Amino acid sequence: MPFTARYGVPFTGLHNDVLAAQLTRRSVRKFGPRDVTEDELTTLVAAAQSAPTSSNLQPWSVVAVRDPARRKRLSVLAGNQEFVASAPLFLVWVADLGRARRLALRAGVPLDGADYLESTIIGFVDTALAAQNAVVAASSLGLGSVFVGAIRNHPEEVAAELGLPSHAVAAFGLAVGTPDPSEEADVKPRLPQEAVLHREVYDAEAADAHVAGYDGVLEAYNARFGLSGGWSERVLSRLKGPESLSGRHVLRATLERLGLPSR
Amino acid sequence: MPFTARYGVPFTGLHNDVLAAQLTRRSVRKFGPRDVTEDELTTLVAAAQSAPTSSNLQPWSVVAVRDPARRKRLSVLAGNQEFVASAPLFLVWVADLGRARRLALRAGVPLDGADYLESTIIGFVDTALAAQNAVVAASSLGLGSVFVGAIRNHPEEVAAELGLPSHAVAAFGLAVGTPDPSEEADVKPRLPQEAVLHREVYDAEAADAHVAGYDGVLEAYNARFGLSGGWSERVLSRLKGPESLSGRHVLRATLERLGLPSR
Repeated sequence: MPFTARYGVPFTGLHNDVLAAQLTRRSVRKFGPRDVTEDELTTLVAAAQSAPTSSNLQPWSVVAVRDPARRKRLSVLAGNQEFVASAPLFLVWVADLGRARRLALRAGVPLDGADYLESTIIGFVDTALAAQNAVVAASSLGLGSVFVGAIRNHPEEVAAELGLPSHAVAAFGLAVGTPDPSEEADVKPRLPQEAVLHREVYDAEAADAHVAGYDGVLEAYNARFGLSGGWSERVLSRLKGPESLSGRHVLRATLERLGLPSR
Repeated sequence: MPFTARYGVPFTGLHNDVLAAQLTRRSVRKFGPRDVTEDELTTLVAAAQSAPTSSNLQPWSVVAVRDPARRKRLSVLAGNQEFVASAPLFLVWVADLGRARRLALRAGVPLDGADYLESTIIGFVDTALAAQNAVVAASSLGLGSVFVGAIRNHPEEVAAELGLPSHAVAAFGLAVGTPDPSEEADVKPRLPQEAVLHREVYDAEAADAHVAGYDGVLEAYNARFGLSGGWSERVLSRLKGPESLSGRHVLRATLERLGLPSR
């Protein structure tokens, strides 16, 4: 299989089952009626826990939401994205420094290192490493998934909905289920490797020379689904200003209130 | 294969080749002499690019360092970790909002949304999602790897060494090579699933009840390698205070100077 979809040209690298699961992954937003089984959930969490974690801190938790009413409420909080309500399983990945904070509280010792942006970033990074393993594991089991960053639109409401303790924040959601074959979607082409891979030192000019060509590839991809535009204009629109961040421009203050200060 | 090592008890979930690559992964810090081939590097980057990314922003780059002198200098900057110098390939994963900033500059439009902590976190999270795909791809190819968070000990010196443009920071390194079978290391046991997986709502008391048992599992694991202590005391020591963060307590100010402000 040439894995042409990832770059718009055949992939010339190596092949095996693991790479096939990764290179053919696409976001799935339309799900069949079958539930995700408990064995599947156990397997996704084991895959997640097998990812590396800084100093074995394991600074994350995951809340498995199956209750339709709760999924519905979360879908409203997450930008009214319907697939959060319609997916049989919604996993909320939590950057969780609360476990370590509670350890320190019980031991009667300080944990001031957790007050720093470095620790918050470790929380988010390690949560992401874990969740990505779950994404690939899901693909390998024939399940589809899609990340939901919009769970950060209203972090305090989400924390209340899930009963999160202090020092914990929903980093992102992951809707999981069996892919509905009627969904019109495909593997999304990415920037050519030459635009992201540098040798020894970063070469901005050489890398950026590949962006215009990618705009064309993505414009053709978008046109297949009735959408217009390439890549650059979407990036510029997405990061234009605080108003383009879906309310997340206040994240720093919100994290501080949730017990994840960015000192 | 029961995958006993991950939890200290046989794993009861599902099995396939992808899950095997994930559940049997361990950190590799001692490498054989064989180089990582160009085909392998291409494959790792393709796996990385196949990970999800928020709004298709692709806010990351990777610098492949093979030059022994540069690896040696990076190893010194990264806490004098010898395996950074001895691994044939050191990948530096860069949270990179520079590409979007340069797009905006060329287009003559604002990109003020990139000034917010939310955007920096998206940068780190998407870099992590990508890098974790590379870790699993490496395992599937028979390569070993280990993340190097200590690359954040001296972000400005690392940026200078790699010629990083503004608005880009080395998020973490990944040493890659063939595992040297003489390394004394194993799959590290993780917290029981009951400690990290919550149903519908977070239950701190139920989860934390599993920590003491895990301390015993990890103490036995550590003892096999001549190390003492369990999990809790290491977590408390690692996050004790600013002095336990290896210089990274100033990360927020450093990121601001590198063009990644946390507004």
